[in-house]
Parts: sequence; C-alpha cells; structure tokens
Amino acid sequence: MTKTLVMGNYTETDLAALRAEFDPVFLAGPDDLAGLREDARASITAMAYKGHAPFGADQMDMLPNLGLLANYGVGYDSIDTAAASARGVKVTNTPNVLNDDVADLAVGLLLCQGREMMQASAWARSGNWAKHGEYQLNRKVSGSTVGILGLGRIGREIADRLAAFKMDIHYYSRSEKETPGWTYHDDPIALAGAADFLIVALVGGKETEKFVSEDVIAAMGPRGVLINISRGTTVDEAALLDALEAGRIAGAGLDVFLNEPDIDPRFYALDNVVIQPHQGSGTVETRAAMGQLQRDNITAFHAGNALLTAVN
Amino acid sequence: MTKTLVMGNYTETDLAALRAEFDPVFLAGPDDLAGLREDARASITAMAYKGHAPFGADQMDMLPNLGLLANYGVGYDSIDTAAASARGVKVTNTPNVLNDDVADLAVGLLLCQGREMMQASAWARSGNWAKHGEYQLNRKVSGSTVGILGLGRIGREIADRLAAFKMDIHYYSRSEKETPGWTYHDDPIALAGAADFLIVALVGGKETEKFVSEDVIAAMGPRGVLINISRGTTVDEAALLDALEAGRIAGAGLDVFLNEPDIDPRFYALDNVVIQPHQGSGTVETRAAMGQLQRDNITAFHAGNALLTAVN
Repeated sequence: MTKTLVMGNYTETDLAALRAEFDPVFLAGPDDLAGLREDARASITAMAYKGHAPFGADQMDMLPNLGLLANYGVGYDSIDTAAASARGVKVTNTPNVLNDDVADLAVGLLLCQGREMMQASAWARSGNWAKHGEYQLNRKVSGSTVGILGLGRIGREIADRLAAFKMDIHYYSRSEKETPGWTYHDDPIALAGAADFLIVALVGGKETEKFVSEDVIAAMGPRGVLINISRGTTVDEAALLDALEAGRIAGAGLDVFLNEPDIDPRFYALDNVVIQPHQGSGTVETRAAMGQLQRDNITAFHAGNALLTAVN
Repeated sequence: MTKTLVMGNYTETDLAALRAEFDPVFLAGPDDLAGLREDARASITAMAYKGHAPFGADQMDMLPNLGLLANYGVGYDSIDTAAASARGVKVTNTPNVLNDDVADLAVGLLLCQGREMMQASAWARSGNWAKHGEYQLNRKVSGSTVGILGLGRIGREIADRLAAFKMDIHYYSRSEKETPGWTYHDDPIALAGAADFLIVALVGGKETEKFVSEDVIAAMGPRGVLINISRGTTVDEAALLDALEAGRIAGAGLDVFLNEPDIDPRFYALDNVVIQPHQGSGTVETRAAMGQLQRDNITAFHAGNALLTAVN
C-alpha cells in the first residue's frame, strides 16, 4: 500500500522520479483531498507538496497518519507549521539550492530597472532608434546605494553580487550581522531613506505581511526603486501601486505579487515596472535540485533517518 | 577668434558647458566641414568630436592648424589615428569613466538572456501567466562558464562582477594577464568552445574586424550565448544572424551592431536576441563624466598643459 502523497504541478522529470521512488498517489491540490477514500488517506505517512494554496489544520486532519510534509520551495508560508507541529507532522523545505537563482534574478531586475533595458529594447525594436536616434539616458547602477531588507541566505547572496558592482550596501535585519563593513539599519524606514534601490529578501508569512508599508515606500522618494523577489505579501501592494502611478517612487522590479498569477491589472498599465512571473528559482538546474531535495527528505523519512532540511 | 570646433550631437548640459568654456563653432558632422569658410577652418586648433562617422585624412586636411581631436567615447575607431599622428594631431578619448556602465549592461544582457527576462515579462504582461500558468524554465546563470574576449579595462570590470556570480572565468587576450586564477586561452575558438556565455569586450577598429568569426560562432555550440558590448564590427554579423536563425547558438545579447541605428532587420525577427540601442555608457552620470573629460582635454591643450588621456 502506498504511503506517499504527491500534491501539485511537477515537471515530467520530477514526476518520473517521484513515481520511480515512491509509487505515490497524485493530487492536484488541497481541495482534492476529500475525493480520496478514507483508507487511502489513512495510509499516507509522507507528502510532497508544491503550490501556494493554504495547507493547514483542516487538510492535515484528513491525513491522520501524516508524519512528513515535504515542501517544494524555500518559502513554506502556505503551510501552517504550528498546526503541523501540534500534530507531530514534520515540515521540510528546499533551502539553499535556489539562493543563486533568486539572487541572480534580483540583480537582473535591478539592472533592467536602472538601465531601463526593457524600454530601451522596445525603443530599438519599434524602429524608434533608427527613426529618432539614441534612447534617453538612464541611471548609473554601479556605485549607487542598495538597501537589502532581510539579510538571510538569499539577501546575503544578493549583497555579495552587488558588492562587485561597487555598491554601497545597507541592510535591515532583526539583528546586526557579520558583514564586510556594510551599514546596518534597525529600522526599515531608515533603510528605505538611505537606498537608491530597495531589495526585499524577507521570508513570507504573517510576520512580514506588509512589512514594506506605505511609510517605507514613502521614505524611498522619487528616485527610489523597489525590487521584490520574496513574496507578494511582504509589500503593501495597494500603497505600492499608488506610489508607482503617482510617480512618488521611480519604479519597481517585481517577481512576486499578491494573488499570483491573477495579479492586479493596475500593474500592466505601468511602464516603470519590470514584471516577472514568479520565476526566481525557475531554472532547469535549480528546479531539478529542489525536486531532488524534496525527494531526499521523503526517502530519509521513510527510512527513519534524520530529515535533511526540517523547519519545525 | 574662436579656436575650438565642436562636432556631433551633445546633451543640453554638455552644450552649455562647451559654450561657456570655449565659445566654439558647432557642426553636426564631418560633411559640414566644407561649409565652413577657409579662415574659420584655419583658426581651429582643437576639436571636440562625438559620433561614429569616419574622421580621417581628408577631414583633417580641411583643418590645417588642428592640434587636438578630443573624442567623446572610449572607442575612437572612427578616427584615423595614423593620419592624425602624421599631421601632428593628438587624439584623446574618454576611457575609464564609462567602464562601470558598460560592464553593468554586459551583466544585464547576460542575465536577461540566461533567465529569459524579456520573454518572461511578455509572458506575464500578455496575460499568459494568468491563463496558462508558469513561464517555462530557463537556465542557471550563477556557476556557469563565461568566456571574455578581450580582458582590457572593460573586460576586467565584467569579469570582476561575474566572479561574484561564482562563474568560472575564462578569457582571451593577446597575452596572459595577472588574474585570480582565471583560465587563459590564446585562441578565441578554444575560448568559445569552453564558454556558456561569450562576452565580446574587444577594442573596435580594423584589427578586430570580424574577430568573432564564423568559426568562433560555430565553436559556441547550441547552448552558447553571445554578448557584445564592444563594436558591431568585431563580429561577423552575417554569420551571427545565420547561426541565430538556425538555432546553432542559443541566443545573443547585443548593444552594438553594424550600421547603427539602421541595424539589419533580420535581428527584429529573432526572439532569442536581446537588443539594446548602443546605450552601454548611456547614463546621465557617465555621459556627464565623459563630457567633462573631453572638455578637460581641450582646456589642457589650449593651456599648453599635458593631455589627460592621449591615445597617440
């Protein structure tokens, strides 16, 4: 009898590996749990989860023998870890293997914004370059001041890259960290005021909801550019849209939004926003590594070995 | 009587500074020299040049007392320096002040290509994200192998940035350089074969014409991506277009082309090319610094002082 449940939308490669390793039951999402027979649900001891739909007490109670909830992704804000812990369910995630990719995309968003690469591309491709000459001058990225909100593993990777652009690195985190002389702020508003580019690298979840508040956005000022590669929830999105529409900040580079993929249509009308479809970790190499780490946690669980990346 | 000629298309800020400092004669380009009276031409001892139209013996002979030709830009391949030297004309350029910007754009092009940022943006903005889900997986940039053709000042700035992306750095130059363990190739074909991303950072001019030859392009292979921020002349553009159209290489990120801004329309039909309208140094900050350095050379010349950045 199968003991593993696989939930979510996986690549062919991941599906084949999951099938070969666990002979699992597949479900598209939490809503499909109710369609599983009770004995099938009772047989499940481990579960691979991928997605952003909430997975909480109600879902866990339908899997009475669940011992492991192995999340695909570093962010596990969809999962109610308190409810999991209360039921003796261990939760794992896939940290570190995606840090490089997410940091790369953050730098890409910053360069696209500073150097207006999307607009310059459109200028050339539309024939405006040939007809009207040079694209307008934009702003220097190297040597400017960056503020990093959250100097965890991903924030640190971003900072290490931007240091090579001779940027003056400022950061906020709950406590000051060991850095090569970067400037610590204990207040996100002060950080926003100091930075040309403000990069959000916070964890998601309730604690950081709207951490980038209307006041933080106001402190960025008309030259400020917001980059978010964390979670849409970390930003007061209505305040951000207001500021972008009014030109109270210069622009934004966003990989994450509220209500993905049905994002607020106000974003589409803005040409001072670079929009990415939540693809921070979206490379073949990294997604394969994430899938492997998710499966390694499940294998370890079934074998009674220590989990590789438990979060509770 | 004015002694300075200003040729080319300058920003308002530069024009104001040129006017204030030199009370110059203005001409749009070399073709307008013939319209100047002979005594006006004879009075010119220094000249500010900006543009990509050839400036050679014929043009210099119309300015018999020219002593300085101060180019705006680090590349002075439009200027026949041999003809200048033969006439005792010193040529200056504006090196170093633009290295950061050009290196930034090279990294931006590399990230846009690797992470398919332009296509992913279009995917989101067209509504495909909402309708059809995730954008396709692309390729990891960090940790890949980059080949830098020409490890001069700009090539070095690019390499220093990419080292922070944990990339394996290979390079070609006329001779091996002091590096932190980067791999030297004395053959551009071997470099192209080793690299995932091949970045052209050569000087322009006759010596490097089609340096990125059909054979170099063939050696890149189907995963190879070409980035060019140097001059359109350094690449065999017909061979590049053939390879891109046939999928024999993965893509290109190009800031420079032959016949700018009337570039080959075959480029517009390709979605595996990121096109930028020759904006490598196109920031407000850097263009101001370039203008300042050009004027500082002219001021030094008129004062009989040593030139700051002579190239001959």
